[in-house]
Amino acid sequence: MRRLAAEGLGSLLLAATVIGSGIMAERLAGGNAALALLANTGATVAALAVLIRLLGPISGAHLNPAVSFVQALRRVLSWREASAYALAQVLGCCLGAVLAHAMFGLPTLQWSLHARSGPSQWLSEAVATFGLLLVVLGGRGEEVPWMAAAWIGAAYWFTPSTSFANPAITIARSLSNTFAGIQPQDVPAFIVAQFAGALAAYYVARNVFCMCDRRRSSPTRAASAAGSHSP
Amino acid sequence: MRRLAAEGLGSLLLAATVIGSGIMAERLAGGNAALALLANTGATVAALAVLIRLLGPISGAHLNPAVSFVQALRRVLSWREASAYALAQVLGCCLGAVLAHAMFGLPTLQWSLHARSGPSQWLSEAVATFGLLLVVLGGRGEEVPWMAAAWIGAAYWFTPSTSFANPAITIARSLSNTFAGIQPQDVPAFIVAQFAGALAAYYVARNVFCMCDRRRSSPTRAASAAGSHSP
Amino acid sequence: MRRLAAEGLGSLLLAATVIGSGIMAERLAGGNAALALLANTGATVAALAVLIRLLGPISGAHLNPAVSFVQALRRVLSWREASAYALAQVLGCCLGAVLAHAMFGLPTLQWSLHARSGPSQWLSEAVATFGLLLVVLGGRGEEVPWMAAAWIGAAYWFTPSTSFANPAITIARSLSNTFAGIQPQDVPAFIVAQFAGALAAYYVARNVFCMCDRRRSSPTRAASAAGSHSP
Amino acid sequence: MRRLAAEGLGSLLLAATVIGSGIMAERLAGGNAALALLANTGATVAALAVLIRLLGPISGAHLNPAVSFVQALRRVLSWREASAYALAQVLGCCLGAVLAHAMFGLPTLQWSLHARSGPSQWLSEAVATFGLLLVVLGGRGEEVPWMAAAWIGAAYWFTPSTSFANPAITIARSLSNTFAGIQPQDVPAFIVAQFAGALAAYYVARNVFCMCDRRRSSPTRAASAAGSHSP
Repeated sequence: MRRLAAEGLGSLLLAATVIGSGIMAERLAGGNAALALLANTGATVAALAVLIRLLGPISGAHLNPAVSFVQALRRVLSWREASAYALAQVLGCCLGAVLAHAMFGLPTLQWSLHARSGPSQWLSEAVATFGLLLVVLGGRGEEVPWMAAAWIGAAYWFTPSTSFANPAITIARSLSNTFAGIQPQDVPAFIVAQFAGALAAYYVARNVFCMCDRRRSSPTRAASAAGSHSP
Repeated sequence: MRRLAAEGLGSLLLAATVIGSGIMAERLAGGNAALALLANTGATVAALAVLIRLLGPISGAHLNPAVSFVQALRRVLSWREASAYALAQVLGCCLGAVLAHAMFGLPTLQWSLHARSGPSQWLSEAVATFGLLLVVLGGRGEEVPWMAAAWIGAAYWFTPSTSFANPAITIARSLSNTFAGIQPQDVPAFIVAQFAGALAAYYVARNVFCMCDRRRSSPTRAASAAGSHSP
Repeated sequence: MRRLAAEGLGSLLLAATVIGSGIMAERLAGGNAALALLANTGATVAALAVLIRLLGPISGAHLNPAVSFVQALRRVLSWREASAYALAQVLGCCLGAVLAHAMFGLPTLQWSLHARSGPSQWLSEAVATFGLLLVVLGGRGEEVPWMAAAWIGAAYWFTPSTSFANPAITIARSLSNTFAGIQPQDVPAFIVAQFAGALAAYYVARNVFCMCDRRRSSPTRAASAAGSHSP
Repeated sequence: MRRLAAEGLGSLLLAATVIGSGIMAERLAGGNAALALLANTGATVAALAVLIRLLGPISGAHLNPAVSFVQALRRVLSWREASAYALAQVLGCCLGAVLAHAMFGLPTLQWSLHARSGPSQWLSEAVATFGLLLVVLGGRGEEVPWMAAAWIGAAYWFTPSTSFANPAITIARSLSNTFAGIQPQDVPAFIVAQFAGALAAYYVARNVFCMCDRRRSSPTRAASAAGSHSP
């Protein structure tokens, strides 16, 4: 339960940051989308690094069903644990959207009308999630917080979708008709692309770079963010 | 006395940075509020991380009455020490506002006319302070400087109030009729919201994540920024 | 092969970030080149630091023929290995350009029309590469990722060419008629300048600062990013 | 000689970054001074952190006559060494200005016409240098690079002079009629203010915080950036 609470709270604060800073950035930027995205990127990167570092020792701080899924594939989590994690992450992110709206005095329940679709965007989501999972699988424990945050920061800019790379955040962003939103009918394809990218990273990390095995056998990484549940 | 001097000097330099960079940013930004806030955020984050790291080994570098209050609840400080800390912080921050005005050639004594009020803003202050205290209570000592600074940087953007999250800074900002100001009559509600957020973080850290106990028992954290006074 | 795969994949993701974030930044910046370059810089710095840290333990994460060339001069790599590295880097970067175009729905094969030439630009490329190699030769292993990334970030701004400082990236950028491009006929002079800067850094590091020898003899640096192949 | 070469080269690259990024930022920013200063700040912070880390183990990486002066007061350097350091720093910075002009195809010899004067600016320079020296005297060795760089980054924004905080850089900037310039007749007062701030920091660090003594006696700090010459 403590671990699920950590995943839920972290997801809530992450989604509130992503959506809230998008609202603030759009309000202040006077129509300049680059400036708004720059502010949105900075806030996301900062909060993500803090939350992974803070909650990593408790739950691993996955904050992302694609990460929990790959950790289940690696048997770091059981499938049952991974499902509970995913549920906590989705609930947390949706509450984070509600909190962001409340903080900015907007209607708490919204559906996004922001269309984000097409093969280019799906490819982008797969690439961004591939890189994120490679960092989680291959990064050293203490460094995963800044590495994951920096990768997401870069991916905000090298993908036309601004890199969701997280199924729980994708669902929550469909509930916000603001800067960071995505219309609900575009969500399923994003999530499929994200899991595909995560699977590809698992395959590459395991078979090409042997990252997964190196990791499990290293005692110095026992308390690491992404490997804290290893037996 | 050395510890109070550290709290006072740190608060002075922090408030001078927050208010001074706000003045500079507004002067240069040509009316673009996002650009001004981006610069204000960068300066605040950088100075906050430096000051916590520099003064942490001396006084704990709370620089924030809400932090000293929670450290008194945890019995890291006595209530008497916490009150002295808070006084040094408020005095330091007010002198910091005066210094910022002097550096920019403005009248040293001002009252802000910037209205910041309403339930949305109070909720925002509570959320921002909640996250800050969670970082202070749960972060590892050496990492608290960058974590606290990064959290505040994110909170500048995900809150409509730009996240004061500090009663001493809030009072000082009421003395500056510039970019970073808040009119005096809006100060009390902000401070109440900040203490409420801090209390909630104390409750969650203690009862949900057991962060407070883990910390006190760890000898490797003895010299940490936020726990340097533990017996 | 594992090492070549790491160099190839890292170069691919690096080039995709550099070129992709350039496209995104230009699209969003509304004609403000400083804003576009700021976003392009942030994405490049973040991805570069992550990739060097992630792949350093596998291949050294040179991601740059000028680095592999100097490592061969220092006998950290054989010349044959260095040539294979360079080939993997060039192929990876070119595929990265193709990937960036695919992610943004642009024609995958392009020739840049962006003229970048003249003694000032060549001098700049030599200075930027000189500094980069000094960091690689003199930085401590664990710190090379952020140091190399921060140096490139600074060099994006203190050079009129925005600091390519990497022959493989230079070739790949000639294949992209976007923000980050360089027309093919300007490539050879850039590469000559980059190798000249790298050679100068090798000379200074070895003869003035004795950096190369200090390094090889230090066991604590055995696993470092740039020296992980030392016998 | 190796130490003087390190001070000279570091000062050269630092001044080239400060002035070069100012030229680039002004060219691209389309008249928006906040955007130009944001880019100038980012480049300066990044290069400063890298150079202090890279050259610290060789010469201490003072790169600043005010730092060498205080290190002589503390008897970390002899007065003769400090003078040689200061000379190398001034020469290096002036060559850096020339290099920046050459990289951007500008006349190499210029006198700045940028007026920067008055009590507010002098106070600002003293405050910025005070904070910088406090970081150098009180920061832990491995952390001085990022702390000094972050402080300067904050001070670029909380001072109307954009915080020169360095007599050698101040002289070099009088040789550049660009964004970062200062007219020669305004230089002496800036230098006096900088030394005054440095002296105040030495007094406070020694008598209020006892930082200087703690440092010298700590063996783990022997290789630190600012204390690497302690007997």
